[in-house]
Amino acid sequence: MADKSEKTKARLPRGFADRSAEDIRAVEKMMAAIRSVYELYGFEPADQPLIEYTDALGKFLPDQDRPNEGVFSFQDDDDQWLSLRYDLTAPTARFVAENYERLPKPYRSYRSGWVFRNEKPGPGRFRQFMQFDADTIGTPGVAADAEMAMMMADVMEALGIKRGDYVIRVNNRKVLDGVLEAIGLGGEDNAGRRLTVLRAIDKLDKLGPEGVRLLLGPGRWDGGKEGEGDFAKGAGLNEGQAEAVLLATAREQARQDSNVSANAIYQEGVGELSTIEALVRAAGYGEDRIAMDRSVVRGLEYYTGPVFEAELLAEIPNEDGQIVRFGSVGGGGRYDGLVSRFRGEPVPATGFSIGVSRLMTALKNLGKLDSADVIAPVVVLVMDKDTESLGRYQKMVAELRSAGIRSEMYLGGAGMKAQLKYADRRGCPVAIIQGGDERAKGELQIKDLIEGARMSAEITDNAEWRAARPAQVTVAESELVAEVKKILAAQAEERACGK
Amino acid sequence: MADKSEKTKARLPRGFADRSAEDIRAVEKMMAAIRSVYELYGFEPADQPLIEYTDALGKFLPDQDRPNEGVFSFQDDDDQWLSLRYDLTAPTARFVAENYERLPKPYRSYRSGWVFRNEKPGPGRFRQFMQFDADTIGTPGVAADAEMAMMMADVMEALGIKRGDYVIRVNNRKVLDGVLEAIGLGGEDNAGRRLTVLRAIDKLDKLGPEGVRLLLGPGRWDGGKEGEGDFAKGAGLNEGQAEAVLLATAREQARQDSNVSANAIYQEGVGELSTIEALVRAAGYGEDRIAMDRSVVRGLEYYTGPVFEAELLAEIPNEDGQIVRFGSVGGGGRYDGLVSRFRGEPVPATGFSIGVSRLMTALKNLGKLDSADVIAPVVVLVMDKDTESLGRYQKMVAELRSAGIRSEMYLGGAGMKAQLKYADRRGCPVAIIQGGDERAKGELQIKDLIEGARMSAEITDNAEWRAARPAQVTVAESELVAEVKKILAAQAEERACGK
Repeated sequence: MADKSEKTKARLPRGFADRSAEDIRAVEKMMAAIRSVYELYGFEPADQPLIEYTDALGKFLPDQDRPNEGVFSFQDDDDQWLSLRYDLTAPTARFVAENYERLPKPYRSYRSGWVFRNEKPGPGRFRQFMQFDADTIGTPGVAADAEMAMMMADVMEALGIKRGDYVIRVNNRKVLDGVLEAIGLGGEDNAGRRLTVLRAIDKLDKLGPEGVRLLLGPGRWDGGKEGEGDFAKGAGLNEGQAEAVLLATAREQARQDSNVSANAIYQEGVGELSTIEALVRAAGYGEDRIAMDRSVVRGLEYYTGPVFEAELLAEIPNEDGQIVRFGSVGGGGRYDGLVSRFRGEPVPATGFSIGVSRLMTALKNLGKLDSADVIAPVVVLVMDKDTESLGRYQKMVAELRSAGIRSEMYLGGAGMKAQLKYADRRGCPVAIIQGGDERAKGELQIKDLIEGARMSAEITDNAEWRAARPAQVTVAESELVAEVKKILAAQAEERACGK
Repeated sequence: MADKSEKTKARLPRGFADRSAEDIRAVEKMMAAIRSVYELYGFEPADQPLIEYTDALGKFLPDQDRPNEGVFSFQDDDDQWLSLRYDLTAPTARFVAENYERLPKPYRSYRSGWVFRNEKPGPGRFRQFMQFDADTIGTPGVAADAEMAMMMADVMEALGIKRGDYVIRVNNRKVLDGVLEAIGLGGEDNAGRRLTVLRAIDKLDKLGPEGVRLLLGPGRWDGGKEGEGDFAKGAGLNEGQAEAVLLATAREQARQDSNVSANAIYQEGVGELSTIEALVRAAGYGEDRIAMDRSVVRGLEYYTGPVFEAELLAEIPNEDGQIVRFGSVGGGGRYDGLVSRFRGEPVPATGFSIGVSRLMTALKNLGKLDSADVIAPVVVLVMDKDTESLGRYQKMVAELRSAGIRSEMYLGGAGMKAQLKYADRRGCPVAIIQGGDERAKGELQIKDLIEGARMSAEITDNAEWRAARPAQVTVAESELVAEVKKILAAQAEERACGK
């Protein structure tokens, strides 16, 4: 097996990631905070499998016009097509439709898990990522949408994001639908063009109004100039139509077109928005937390009413130290058609999805996900390798663990110097050493590795040396646990003082 | 979309499961306990993606002789084959091989997650299930294997399983390998037959020695009698060979065959086993927790040395109330070839895997995963549906949540009776009611739904009625939070007293 000539190459597939211990701990901490808010709001945990029948997932993936494009799919042995889920909403819709009678209605649930996109990977663009969703299914009332917005505002603060450093933006798809109908883009025939308009508006932040105007009209070259990059075909709106769409989706609403105002869907959308606004204000959520914003549309085709977006306003240093506006970390909206397509009766629904990895990166850069409370293990060095000695070291470790102290016996084959290097690499706080001499006297040495490192790095004269805690003590075997506890406590105190 | 004629059928794919809120909470609790033991032992969290290159996963799946059988696979757009992982060990081996230089060695890590088997589903046999593994990579010493066994024993007790109700069984593949060599089944040519022997022995618990004897010899009919079920081809051993294998894998070792005793691999295996035994005994783990047991072989081909199995001894009622011996809830062993096949140099490794769903079922049936500490939300009923009233109800909920009380406003469209039915279905402890009359007086009604249900079920005379807590009180709006807290506290006290 260890023949070099026929060895397999170990390589991570393109677009996938191994996660570090630090990131895993950060995500755990973050998800516990999100979960506690969802629970406080009366939502219950739910979980669907990662694989669904392809037809149950539907064709709702953003930026993918051909069926099943963007999804990992494979055929079962009975020839039925299966797919890895691309979000958590479609499986939720399948689950609720299948179990509708026995669920309490409205059905409030939350779920987290991996989703997959069969896309071209790129920097920061992964083919497996984690979402954390909450959904309320079985109610048409916008009170449910208002609650989603409030819950997301509470989630942001539970994560330690200061008021003013985030905002939940709320809009209503019906407003844009009404405008599109008023300018002659209503009806089933124009569904494709409406989707193109939607995706153009969703790029407002990235391209600005002039770039979006091109996408609404004739189309746009990716590179920004003619002939640069790929050409994205536009929605084919004329100048007046494009202007109407841009006006209706401007963040600040300056004036209203009277043609549009008469449109029933538009009025319904505006009316729902003001109900949502009244409800969140009554519950004490100000504009600094939840803002009505006509520029929010969301790129997904399946939204039918209110849509939301959670945006981080804080300017956050990125990995390269540059200050960036982080932008959206989650979003959602009302998807009244997604469950009903299984049931042949209306099953209104609304939900919100948090992009876990993206939010984690933001929180890490904001310094909100400190994992300094996780202490590396105390390591018992192996000086003698006979079974009897190993048994003795093993017993020391067992004693430390019984006292709740994270610890391990060094398990490699290396000498003392390499063992201390291992301890250093792991960031171990304490090393326990017992060679033959100590053994004979019933003693052991305990090395304070944190103090040891500090001393060798910092101490320049003898006075300092004498004032420092000793970096190594020799104690009786029976004193092991007590002495290690003492050192760990002293280290904890120093950390707390930021020494 | 809601046209019945073209609606999609909502159906869970065969062999997959939706998880209930109760099961999700139980698994969370269980995994937190396992994680705390792994951390105490100095292991660090790690995580690999669910998708790997097919060739990186290797061909190590049990009971599958053809390459890639049993695995969900699909081709990437560059024609490379990708697969969903079938366990957590193969991706770990890929990760360690790819990042070997920068990892501390030995590398101790733990990971949990979903794995997939493309198998025929059956009762209790799922195609997606969860594992929770720990691995120590980069050390040949059996001290690492001894530690795995001790850690698993500690995990069992951390989960509340009493001493005597579980045992970690330890054996060594080299013992069986030595026997096979001694009876003429050594060498590359006999690899297939050795695997058949392994899988036969792994069925000892299920088939008993006589069933296994058939599988070691000519073969066996699945149904137990000739012509019943499918015929499983045997390893083709003669009677003497089969007897030697059965002797070597008997739980109690009665006598030793002198032919075998002279075999070097056999001796190495027996020697390693006694070192493991000495180490675990030195650390204070008795035979009641960790037992040496020659009948343990594990069905996976890739094990090269010590193998372990965690077995529940407790007799546990199953879903139908029958008392069953639960058996294995996890296992593992040394897999020295799995990382080295990527690297062309020896990278010894050992690990343990817990079957999360199986263990969760066992713990639930043992009554060790009580989720009674999760209280359903307080529900604020919606008596008036105008925006102003909704805003008022929303404000009450916001106040309750600010006080840390899990609560929700009823979000459906139903009347009061249906709303109370909803509260009942959710198991809500308290309902808040404010109609127009109460509103005018600045009051609200608070219903104790637990006491209400008890009273209507139990109370038979007037004296009892007077002694009971009132099931409904009317208080001033400002008293909402204080009064709800009082009722929840009284309910908690009753639960604690088992009333």
